[in-house]
Amino acid sequence: MKIVHTIADIRASVAAARLEGKTIGLVPTMGYFHEGHLSLMRQARKDNDFVVVSLFVNPTQFGANEDLRDYPRDMDRDALMAEEAGVDLIFSPSVEEMYPEGYQTYVAVEEMTKGLCGEFRSVHFRGVATVCLKLFNIVQPDRAYFGRKDYQQLKVVERMVKNLNVPLEIVGMPTVREPDGLAMSSRNTYLSSEERKAALVLSKSLAYAQELLDSGITSGAEIQREVEVFIGPASGGLARIEYVSVVHPETLECLDRIENEAVIALAVRIGKTRLIDNGVIRNA
Amino acid sequence: MKIVHTIADIRASVAAARLEGKTIGLVPTMGYFHEGHLSLMRQARKDNDFVVVSLFVNPTQFGANEDLRDYPRDMDRDALMAEEAGVDLIFSPSVEEMYPEGYQTYVAVEEMTKGLCGEFRSVHFRGVATVCLKLFNIVQPDRAYFGRKDYQQLKVVERMVKNLNVPLEIVGMPTVREPDGLAMSSRNTYLSSEERKAALVLSKSLAYAQELLDSGITSGAEIQREVEVFIGPASGGLARIEYVSVVHPETLECLDRIENEAVIALAVRIGKTRLIDNGVIRNA
Repeated sequence: MKIVHTIADIRASVAAARLEGKTIGLVPTMGYFHEGHLSLMRQARKDNDFVVVSLFVNPTQFGANEDLRDYPRDMDRDALMAEEAGVDLIFSPSVEEMYPEGYQTYVAVEEMTKGLCGEFRSVHFRGVATVCLKLFNIVQPDRAYFGRKDYQQLKVVERMVKNLNVPLEIVGMPTVREPDGLAMSSRNTYLSSEERKAALVLSKSLAYAQELLDSGITSGAEIQREVEVFIGPASGGLARIEYVSVVHPETLECLDRIENEAVIALAVRIGKTRLIDNGVIRNA
Repeated sequence: MKIVHTIADIRASVAAARLEGKTIGLVPTMGYFHEGHLSLMRQARKDNDFVVVSLFVNPTQFGANEDLRDYPRDMDRDALMAEEAGVDLIFSPSVEEMYPEGYQTYVAVEEMTKGLCGEFRSVHFRGVATVCLKLFNIVQPDRAYFGRKDYQQLKVVERMVKNLNVPLEIVGMPTVREPDGLAMSSRNTYLSSEERKAALVLSKSLAYAQELLDSGITSGAEIQREVEVFIGPASGGLARIEYVSVVHPETLECLDRIENEAVIALAVRIGKTRLIDNGVIRNA
């Protein structure tokens, strides 16, 4: 496995693979790999002849008071894990390589980024869409892989690709969870052991929302309220709710009434750590 | 020469040309061709094996009170002219094909679009950048051709391509002028014969700015003021100034002092018609 740091080098490597007629898969990441990332790499390995993982903690998707500086990093460990997952090449550029002096171009997906995480992280999705488009243009992959854990991110990237006619396929992969249900996240490393237990409230909330729907409650607003009431006691008082929303799976608009299925998405803070989770709930 | 209207059709045609190993040139236009457009097509013909002209009056680059509805259109005449210029394919999509329901993604180049035309047409360059990026993704050309008459547009597209790592070359071509100096523009067709004479004030202003610099005036603000004073009488009182600016050729920032060269750019209204022009002025 090769590790390159410049746009010129990654383009040369990808061009060589293309010349051999190989298909290209890209897994965009911010590093500090867990099983969620590895599941994307393994799927990319199955679907493509040449697998690129980008590893870049993208400053434009962090707000001023967020954890950019503290975001966990471990390049050596990441490189070993990626190699074991069958990755051909890691692209790990510097901030200056991606955003040189005079940088001033941003991509915005509008309606879909106003709710959910967008309300609390206003510049976040602009940064995500911009860096993904840059990576797509640099690597020019046939397929790019994203986890459903960051559901709004997945849908925003899908919409951007569709709207801007970017010539590639976005592959969304299931959330990978710890045995007890906690969604894998690089940010789980911030949790104390007490907080780690309380963090189970996220996955429990998804199951609870399905129970509410099964009991005949089809109002999105009512499910949201019930889940909000549930979170306090179920986290031993450690969780502060940022949002709980019941939304249309594609438009991400809040659903008054659940006909067939909906996505319940939530963000809570456990101590200083912001965690998100989501799941589909279905009307039987 | 073929004319296609859907993204699927243009992609199939371009893919066939690619399979034959051909290089692709793209000339994005809003139609109603004049010699300026034809000069781009002829250059594209020289540089590439397969030449695509897009013809799309892009609604997202017109403001609410602008001439979208009245913008001149003549597809039959345009097709004949393009064929004579050696174009292989015209891509002429509908508005629905380019902006289907649920469309919500826009590209913004920030600092460079605040001054000059950007001050008076606030959504204009967002629309230009977005439609160009879509066309680049749809056609995937090796080179795309733009006239320097729309200088700010050329620089905005160049910056977008650089910032977003779009894999193509932007070729900027000289402004084509009528024998008396008026820059060719589809909007010249709006002018009455009296207005047509008054419109010469634009190219005369560029020459006058060079004279001022030659006389030793190197202050951008002073040249701007002198040209503003010149425009009224020189247009027989028919021109209303929108802006006169002396700017850095790449950043488009206003220049206090002209060291080597500057771009003077101006926009005036002659009657109801908005005209722009620009030129490089050089310190001898």
